Amino acid sequence: MTYAIDHIGLLVTNDVESGDGPLGVRRDVALVIDGGRVAAIEPAGVHADDGVDAGGRCVMPGFVDSHTHLVFAGDRSDEFVARMAGAPYRAGGITTTVDATRAASDDELTRLLDVRVAESRRNGITTTEIKSGYGLTVDHEARLLRVAGAATTETTFLGAHVVPAEYAGRPDDYVELVRTSMLDAVAGSCRWVDAFCEVGAFDADQCRAILTAASGRGLGTRLHANQLGHGPGVQLAVELGCASADHCTYLTDADIEALAGSSTVATFLPATDFSTRQPYPDARRVIDAGATVALATNCNPGSSYTSSMSFCIALAVRDMHMTIEEAVLAATVGGAAALRRPDLGRLSVGSRADAILLDAPSYTHLVYRPGMPLIARVWQA
Amino acid sequence: MTYAIDHIGLLVTNDVESGDGPLGVRRDVALVIDGGRVAAIEPAGVHADDGVDAGGRCVMPGFVDSHTHLVFAGDRSDEFVARMAGAPYRAGGITTTVDATRAASDDELTRLLDVRVAESRRNGITTTEIKSGYGLTVDHEARLLRVAGAATTETTFLGAHVVPAEYAGRPDDYVELVRTSMLDAVAGSCRWVDAFCEVGAFDADQCRAILTAASGRGLGTRLHANQLGHGPGVQLAVELGCASADHCTYLTDADIEALAGSSTVATFLPATDFSTRQPYPDARRVIDAGATVALATNCNPGSSYTSSMSFCIALAVRDMHMTIEEAVLAATVGGAAALRRPDLGRLSVGSRADAILLDAPSYTHLVYRPGMPLIARVWQA
Repeated sequence: MTYAIDHIGLLVTNDVESGDGPLGVRRDVALVIDGGRVAAIEPAGVHADDGVDAGGRCVMPGFVDSHTHLVFAGDRSDEFVARMAGAPYRAGGITTTVDATRAASDDELTRLLDVRVAESRRNGITTTEIKSGYGLTVDHEARLLRVAGAATTETTFLGAHVVPAEYAGRPDDYVELVRTSMLDAVAGSCRWVDAFCEVGAFDADQCRAILTAASGRGLGTRLHANQLGHGPGVQLAVELGCASADHCTYLTDADIEALAGSSTVATFLPATDFSTRQPYPDARRVIDAGATVALATNCNPGSSYTSSMSFCIALAVRDMHMTIEEAVLAATVGGAAALRRPDLGRLSVGSRADAILLDAPSYTHLVYRPGMPLIARVWQA
Repeated sequence: MTYAIDHIGLLVTNDVESGDGPLGVRRDVALVIDGGRVAAIEPAGVHADDGVDAGGRCVMPGFVDSHTHLVFAGDRSDEFVARMAGAPYRAGGITTTVDATRAASDDELTRLLDVRVAESRRNGITTTEIKSGYGLTVDHEARLLRVAGAATTETTFLGAHVVPAEYAGRPDDYVELVRTSMLDAVAGSCRWVDAFCEVGAFDADQCRAILTAASGRGLGTRLHANQLGHGPGVQLAVELGCASADHCTYLTDADIEALAGSSTVATFLPATDFSTRQPYPDARRVIDAGATVALATNCNPGSSYTSSMSFCIALAVRDMHMTIEEAVLAATVGGAAALRRPDLGRLSVGSRADAILLDAPSYTHLVYRPGMPLIARVWQA
């Protein structure tokens, strides 16, 4: 069944061979969709009678959000308020959410997740990675991945989020549990394994042990790295061939050199730096060195309770000095690269037809009009 | 005809005698409205059958946006893109909008304004000040105020926005026109007179001449002051008894002392500082000195093309170190003070019933969830 979005003023294909400039833009066209794929890009007006009319506005690929923690229960707005009043961010606040999440029923977790996924869709996100990490027992982590798996194919096991209270003072025992019994229980229900490499969470050896075990089972790997200070995370992610090193707020020249020479994507989460009053990553140095970069929301109740990719793009341009085109690419094909999904993030012929209509003539308005709800319509193949 | 918003989980009254804390909050109540005024605040459940159900969410006063330039034609996204790529912001870009606005018909200006006012309503703004300033001839300024007057009572004559091309090199001749013939033509169709006191716009003596003439006709006065650097604007605003000094990005101790000892509101426009990569004002010093502060969007095509007051509140907390409560007050009763409208910005008994329902349990989520479209419903009396 053919479907067309006609009278597109500006179409972002993200394919330099399909159009002009770094985003491969086409003007005054119709996007013809067949079986969830882009079947053709035709001159505007051909489908005036059998298509949706974009009214001269901008259509672009749906956002690919490669880093979220959407399965959780409970509230941490008090912690946020305290932080805005001067308290520092610490990884330990995660345990508050662990307690509330363990106490919630499957139905409640599914209901909460569905609300958040619907919010993120309205914000133009058509692919969402979702991590576990608020269970931290074999059964609870397996449960969170079952719940997440109903909402996305991009599920990530994050047993190594923090050391749970039951293992206080025995982090290596917990790491052993994660890399053996817990991984046994979840391996069939996740695509990715992640770990939080940070002071207060897990050190390099602990993360290496877990991700090596994951790779041995054929699972993809990714790493929370260099969020709150300099550390070994980014270089470890490159060493292990992780698909992505996420946060990258504190980077040395050696970290950047490692990223640039690798297939590991540097994933920036600027809404987190906003919500924790951390400095923003120096995206220019990373991009200019030649590394691939992504933008993701990190939607979670502790450090970044937003699924507005538009907000992340605006911060990336204003405060990380990315060009608007670099930011748009990072939020689409960049996220796709971080998930090793080359089928996502483009709207050239043959691509998956995940698309968004902006209430604006150009993608530049995502930054030019910060805070405005510009996502007028979302198509998910 | 009585109308009720029932099952409000958290009601912000902004009246410390009506509830708890700096925002006068009440929990689990119904807001009863009669004839556009708050008639009563009752326990939740009384109006379960004849009211709107807030579902336990937060209701608060509508935002009062005391500084916008919503009547314009044309596009300046290219200038924005260039600025994000490193070009500095200059007041002179205003002339681009002047050319496009002069060329637009009344109908076109009204249509564009209506779209922008509707956007700002959806963003929770229930009162919008609108300035002229893109006409800069007697006829064009009068026309813009007629168009604006159809959308708001809070119309502001800003003939002294920049010196138009026709008066290049003769700024004092233009000032003379503004304070005489132009003021004659518009005095009946504006409530306020404003001027842009800045290098590249008008100096203190020129602004004083215009605002003194305005006061002589019984019009209220306000001033764009200290946006792009230190200058005489803030102290001039206080000297002249202006209702508001707007921007206040660069303040000396003497400026702050002047504000604190006056009835002039310091109005911050942080979305402008975001969009021009200026530093953010030091709100803490101003508030701690005892001055009244407001937050406004400054929605305009050159330096701040947003009507998201939620975005302004988030910036005010994250980057200007206001508490969330201070920011909420500044965006409601603060804006009302800047417009000398004590009837606005509160939801206590007898207040005008301009209210918004948040898709959140608390106003804190305006900052905790940056970029999210949280305005679920808007009531305008």
